[in-house]
Amino acid sequence: MEQLKQRILEDGTVKPGNVLKVDSFLNHQIDIAFMNQIGAEFARRFAGSPVNKILTIEASGIGIAAICAQHFDNAPVVFAKKSKSLNLDGDLCHARVESFTHKTVSDVVVSKKFLSPDDHVLVIDDFLANGNAAKGIIDLVEKAGAELSGMGFIIEKAFQHGGDYLRNAGIRVESLAIIESLDNCEIKIR
Amino acid sequence: MEQLKQRILEDGTVKPGNVLKVDSFLNHQIDIAFMNQIGAEFARRFAGSPVNKILTIEASGIGIAAICAQHFDNAPVVFAKKSKSLNLDGDLCHARVESFTHKTVSDVVVSKKFLSPDDHVLVIDDFLANGNAAKGIIDLVEKAGAELSGMGFIIEKAFQHGGDYLRNAGIRVESLAIIESLDNCEIKIR
Repeated sequence: MEQLKQRILEDGTVKPGNVLKVDSFLNHQIDIAFMNQIGAEFARRFAGSPVNKILTIEASGIGIAAICAQHFDNAPVVFAKKSKSLNLDGDLCHARVESFTHKTVSDVVVSKKFLSPDDHVLVIDDFLANGNAAKGIIDLVEKAGAELSGMGFIIEKAFQHGGDYLRNAGIRVESLAIIESLDNCEIKIR
Repeated sequence: MEQLKQRILEDGTVKPGNVLKVDSFLNHQIDIAFMNQIGAEFARRFAGSPVNKILTIEASGIGIAAICAQHFDNAPVVFAKKSKSLNLDGDLCHARVESFTHKTVSDVVVSKKFLSPDDHVLVIDDFLANGNAAKGIIDLVEKAGAELSGMGFIIEKAFQHGGDYLRNAGIRVESLAIIESLDNCEIKIR
């Protein structure tokens, strides 16, 4: 997606540890009109896939998924929660996710009330890096008995190989911008 | 907002400790079409106020704020983050927030790059209870030197008195449903 690539090159900054910061439009401030263009692009790419639910993981994914869902006939958005809160109970699916950015391990949970064998799920998230969060989400979808229609990421860091893992597992993955390298703090986009 | 009251009465459940669960449309699964109706209602109520930025706090607020922002000329959404992550740096405003639901104290931060004296800020969040999160957000707005145009909450728990505090402080507060009591696990709406 050309406009996204330009935006990353203009606004993105690289931090030590291969961290790409796109806080001005995605991870701290959200450009809503631009997210609608991104949602339209995901809808174009997944046009042939059945999707009745959008699944993401808190926190950054939620705003993106909410806007994108409008381009999938207002499909409900379910966001997996990062720990069992006082507010979650009942029949839950659990998965473990290690965060590359935060250097933490989280238990992510989703209620079976909102993810079931009737669901055709499109996962939407901001970043695909080593795929740890993605694997956790897939684990949740499988435990709920739902069908995974595909996974859409705004930015994929190809050099961290999460995308290779997912595509080799036969999952339909669409990444709107693929970063080849962040070496020497230079952003190289495929 | 009549439709919201009906939805709370139909879908809401009460948990010990005066916790109101509305996971089916707001806090775990998000009803996107309904959130657009909510956004339109906030836009109607704040029609006379200058708003060029929507501010919320992760995690539940983000999806709601993103949808609502579309009803404020696609104003950018800034979400305060609950801890200083590896991905945040530069000139930050900090505030402390105690969570009623999670029984934790968080440091919430927002970058001065995305909240400045030029901004007329509408705060959007899911719940107003004792007002701790709201006070933290106001603290961030003040530290950034921005102007607070108002605060919109989907659900206010009147018996926890955060709303009293904010209105007494002269802040324009709009809550779309006001819960009078959750005593004996019964939802009483004003």
